[in-house]
Amino acid sequence: MTVTITAFAASPDRGRGMARDMPVRWALEEVGLPYQVRLVSFAEMKEPTHLGLQPFGQIPTYEDGTVALFESGAIVLHIAQNHKGLLPEEPAARGRAIAWLFAALSTLEPPVLDRETAGFLECDEPWYAARQPMLESRIRARLDALAAGLGETEWLVNGMFSAGDLQMVTVLRRLVSSGLLDGYPTLSAYVGRAEARPAFQRAFAAQRVVFEANEGSEGGQPSGYTARTK
Amino acid sequence: MTVTITAFAASPDRGRGMARDMPVRWALEEVGLPYQVRLVSFAEMKEPTHLGLQPFGQIPTYEDGTVALFESGAIVLHIAQNHKGLLPEEPAARGRAIAWLFAALSTLEPPVLDRETAGFLECDEPWYAARQPMLESRIRARLDALAAGLGETEWLVNGMFSAGDLQMVTVLRRLVSSGLLDGYPTLSAYVGRAEARPAFQRAFAAQRVVFEANEGSEGGQPSGYTARTK
Repeated sequence: MTVTITAFAASPDRGRGMARDMPVRWALEEVGLPYQVRLVSFAEMKEPTHLGLQPFGQIPTYEDGTVALFESGAIVLHIAQNHKGLLPEEPAARGRAIAWLFAALSTLEPPVLDRETAGFLECDEPWYAARQPMLESRIRARLDALAAGLGETEWLVNGMFSAGDLQMVTVLRRLVSSGLLDGYPTLSAYVGRAEARPAFQRAFAAQRVVFEANEGSEGGQPSGYTARTK
Repeated sequence: MTVTITAFAASPDRGRGMARDMPVRWALEEVGLPYQVRLVSFAEMKEPTHLGLQPFGQIPTYEDGTVALFESGAIVLHIAQNHKGLLPEEPAARGRAIAWLFAALSTLEPPVLDRETAGFLECDEPWYAARQPMLESRIRARLDALAAGLGETEWLVNGMFSAGDLQMVTVLRRLVSSGLLDGYPTLSAYVGRAEARPAFQRAFAAQRVVFEANEGSEGGQPSGYTARTK
């Protein structure tokens, strides 16, 4: 059975590749696995059919006839563990790459999303500006450690692009427009190297097409809608 | 080689089993794998030796002679994928259990930690009280979905305790003292069932011993220190 994933019919990110179908599309492109996309509306995401696949009413999901998964991290890891190209074969390096994937989701992403969520939900609150230095300092502490871990190498583990890099760059891309990466030239270059990969380019173009096809037809999302999906 | 993990020499959680060595100890106990613990001070966690194992300077780490891992989620998954007892054998159920593990870390835990971090870092700020309803409402949205996903069943996947439950209960335990679980009797019972497992009890007792042995000898941690470790 062809792999089927779900994505937003009308992504609140407006085609910038920030929704969580993006890392899944990217992983599928990296390993060369064809896939089809079922677009779901915000209403459909909260209906029993979708909730049976995704208990939190989010996208993406992944079905291949054998497994039906949710959580983009779980899906990326599943693809990486079952196809060649996204994990080293050698056990120590393989374990390390998976650890970096978890670090992206559990250590780097939470402070990145905190800042983003504050921008969506609290930007009109009187405390918004006062909290910014704290939110940014928590992100910088993680970026300092990541930059030290990456050093002058091309990718996180043994010079080979892995699912760990894919997930880490997915999180770092959320920071590009914030200017927070400006003090980290090696991390900016790392994001650039990843985005230049043909698989990234194909995945980005594929999600962009959905946005362009739908633009205008759905009347637009409320401004400030959070793109926080899993 | 015997498995070696790291844990806090002086855990800021004061032996309540909230530090991130707890899920790793629990997973090791569930699969019956003996392990030893290397205790690290806060100073040692920031030194090159430890940073070589854990780039973010946190605990726990895991070494077994073949792999050296960081991130508690990666370690729990590694144990579950390499030993019997924490994942169903059947592929669809196995995939689903891993998806729940990621959901615990990526979907439930972020809002839980947001509220906890605000309690540590912002409790004296003028906006602290005003932000609480928003922080709690984001947690409740996740708990609603989790309670619906669990339904009246004992464990999340096919009635068998899995690494998904282990990670989910690890996050839910952070909420017990908050009262936020009070409106969710099935989730409270779920946490109780998990905590009653002999493997949980052994893991809890083992981390408790470290706290009791060190109590008084380190002069205590600064109050309000966050137990946010990976």
